[in-house]
Amino acid sequence: MVDILIKNATLITMEGKGLGIIPQGAVSIKDNKITEVGQLRNFTQKKAHKEIDVEEKVVMPGLIDAHIHTGIGILRGLSQDVDNWMEGGLWPFVKALDEEGRVKGSMVNIIEGLKAGTTTFCDYDNPMGKIANNHAQVGSRAVLADTVNEMSDKSDIEVGDLYPLDPSVGQEKLRNALELMEKWHGYKDGRIRCLMGPQGPDMMSKELLLEVKEIAKRYNTKIHMHVAQGDREIYQMEKRYGKRSIQYLDEIGYLDDMLLAVHLTEATAEETKLVAQRGASMILCSGSIGIIDGIVPPAAEFKKYSSKLALGSDQAPGNNCNNMFNEMKFTAILNKCKVNDPKVFPAWEVLKMATINAAKALGMEDEIGSIAPGKKADIIIVDTNSPSMFPALQTPQRNIVPNLVYSANGSEVETVIIDGEIVMEERRLTKTNEKQAILEGQKAAENIAQRAEKFYKNMNTTLSKKMEEGLI
Amino acid sequence: MVDILIKNATLITMEGKGLGIIPQGAVSIKDNKITEVGQLRNFTQKKAHKEIDVEEKVVMPGLIDAHIHTGIGILRGLSQDVDNWMEGGLWPFVKALDEEGRVKGSMVNIIEGLKAGTTTFCDYDNPMGKIANNHAQVGSRAVLADTVNEMSDKSDIEVGDLYPLDPSVGQEKLRNALELMEKWHGYKDGRIRCLMGPQGPDMMSKELLLEVKEIAKRYNTKIHMHVAQGDREIYQMEKRYGKRSIQYLDEIGYLDDMLLAVHLTEATAEETKLVAQRGASMILCSGSIGIIDGIVPPAAEFKKYSSKLALGSDQAPGNNCNNMFNEMKFTAILNKCKVNDPKVFPAWEVLKMATINAAKALGMEDEIGSIAPGKKADIIIVDTNSPSMFPALQTPQRNIVPNLVYSANGSEVETVIIDGEIVMEERRLTKTNEKQAILEGQKAAENIAQRAEKFYKNMNTTLSKKMEEGLI
Repeated sequence: MVDILIKNATLITMEGKGLGIIPQGAVSIKDNKITEVGQLRNFTQKKAHKEIDVEEKVVMPGLIDAHIHTGIGILRGLSQDVDNWMEGGLWPFVKALDEEGRVKGSMVNIIEGLKAGTTTFCDYDNPMGKIANNHAQVGSRAVLADTVNEMSDKSDIEVGDLYPLDPSVGQEKLRNALELMEKWHGYKDGRIRCLMGPQGPDMMSKELLLEVKEIAKRYNTKIHMHVAQGDREIYQMEKRYGKRSIQYLDEIGYLDDMLLAVHLTEATAEETKLVAQRGASMILCSGSIGIIDGIVPPAAEFKKYSSKLALGSDQAPGNNCNNMFNEMKFTAILNKCKVNDPKVFPAWEVLKMATINAAKALGMEDEIGSIAPGKKADIIIVDTNSPSMFPALQTPQRNIVPNLVYSANGSEVETVIIDGEIVMEERRLTKTNEKQAILEGQKAAENIAQRAEKFYKNMNTTLSKKMEEGLI
Repeated sequence: MVDILIKNATLITMEGKGLGIIPQGAVSIKDNKITEVGQLRNFTQKKAHKEIDVEEKVVMPGLIDAHIHTGIGILRGLSQDVDNWMEGGLWPFVKALDEEGRVKGSMVNIIEGLKAGTTTFCDYDNPMGKIANNHAQVGSRAVLADTVNEMSDKSDIEVGDLYPLDPSVGQEKLRNALELMEKWHGYKDGRIRCLMGPQGPDMMSKELLLEVKEIAKRYNTKIHMHVAQGDREIYQMEKRYGKRSIQYLDEIGYLDDMLLAVHLTEATAEETKLVAQRGASMILCSGSIGIIDGIVPPAAEFKKYSSKLALGSDQAPGNNCNNMFNEMKFTAILNKCKVNDPKVFPAWEVLKMATINAAKALGMEDEIGSIAPGKKADIIIVDTNSPSMFPALQTPQRNIVPNLVYSANGSEVETVIIDGEIVMEERRLTKTNEKQAILEGQKAAENIAQRAEKFYKNMNTTLSKKMEEGLI
């Protein structure tokens, strides 16, 4: 007898050459794994402790958010529509951000993603040791990195200055990252795992980068890093090393299949090609880079050479949501408009980027990203009776995949199963009190806002003027 | 005693120079109008038949969808990611589309918009006489146009041919439009009104266009028309008249404040400037034009000269959703990425385009688009306790407006009041059975799909190949 049987599903398995669509399909789950997938009429594992008749709704792999910073989610919406998002607006609030705010805010961020169908969170932040508890509690699959850099919080850097790098800071952060690894890597049969997260090539010495790489090899994990993420990074790299980020990383042996290169905002076509050809993955954050920088990163270039392209929602201050349906939509439309061609980034391709190709990018394709026997049971049920998914047609042409990408907004996700466990059912979280989490987060946010007031007053920013004018 | 008192609101009135934000605010409603707006502590009309304590949630004007075709909503998702969206994919389904499908599909489309906070629908379709019943039933505010053109359905046109125009078709469609006007214009104290809807300058003779204009003058209504909506239109205009659409329209006296010019996809900067300077409004459909054509229309050019810029969700096959939160998001990010500048199309400006500036564009600013005494009571309540709106901060800097535009997806809309009537409460429609509407629509859609099969089989399109490959 299996634990869960999902039947009468419009299955989108993401297996095989196409999307592996099976109308009138079924999936069975035992413990944390998928045990059988196929047409209901040929199904063998029909006895289950829990049977879910989904009445032709869509059943598909959970979405993978390949780059998210839940620890600053609590600053959502505080710096928008400005140059220099960080210095121009977010800074007073970052200064006032405490551990409580990071951890409480992270919880709401995770809930937000989960309710929109995200089952795997590549969470990149600190204090990750504490944030990991949130993932453990809500039941999410998490791939965690505790940010490593050599940036001292105390130093006041003028624009244009080379960042002073402080090796003692680097060593402390490395210790945190190792502690995280020791404590959480492999938790619950690998539902939570860790990797190394050097913040960027401009924020640490070559020596530390190489040390990080050795550790990653030892633990057999990937390296999750911002690469060519902005003109400031390129400026720092040229000033310090006389070369751009990607050439530098190639020379020190960083461009290989261990690397998850996030953003590539400033990468040229040639540089992007090199990253892809060396076997590294690209993580594209369409919403965040579009809203913060007005840029569409070179994902079209990357995917000419590699399918290891994943999507990430990045951080709520900036993006401003952590919703993979939003990322799919933005990715499709922004890339179409970049080259004035409606054919590029079609729905099926973008859906792959949020599922099976993301799993490949993370090196986790044997475990997640599709619905297949033996894989971990990370599955979402999407309500095709929602107005935004109406109508649901199977023949002569199916309209479900385009509607998932272009129309659904995440609120159609009805049920979320992670690692064989139902963590959301009929839109109610089963393991966490959503209301309580938001209430506690709101209190923490108000405390941050209060502390930020003294920094904010002295800034006289574009945003504070807009606030005075009543525009925000 | 008033009918409804909304209290403890974070009011975004859209009145005055800024956005007219009033924390701890209240609004009262009697019959179909707003009677008082202000801070709760100074409020006079405190006795009400129904009191809604919104506990600091956002209360704002209902959103205005300035261009929507609900009559083809039932074909959602059937033609995506191709050149020639209509001929390349939608055609077999359009051929099979019957009146039942149009009307039943329209109902679900309206429900979709309404649940995402749209209170005014500028619905442009046919048979509008029947679709009007849907708006009457659900309680939406509607500005209706029955499409007028001289295109014969029977003629098979080869690509590159000049469309044959048939004056008898034009006269029949004009009769329908006049019937609609006589029957519905002014219904329920103007909750439903009508205007003239010539489909485009390429689809009818100059004589018919001028006749339409005379009728619009007689009824004192605007003219809602697609202008420079694609390269095909420009090609037809140049072939027939030796000039582009906007020059032609200017010469025949069509560019004035009666005109709502939809799309302007192909308009040059100079042409756009002329449209704005002549006093016409622009309706921007960011999602639909982005997905179908990969183009960002020249809204930035338009708004240099005029504030009469509104947003429209266009038709579900193409866009694919009729959700104004989606339109706001797309409008901001696409325009930022068009010019690589995060400062353009800031949140507050986009929010205006969906409310007060849309009302100006429609010439309805005395009635809708903001919360002010004497205006019609079209109001939505947005749940700021949703994860996507978390946290909600008022000081030292408010983050609510950016989060409404960049993060909310419409599912945060809790309550919708139109013309003083609560049409949705706690996400349940009060006047329509949503489930039943979707069930009936789904049946109608399946009938269309069945009839489309014979046309579809002969087409051998990109999409039918993708269908065979299991990609859609």
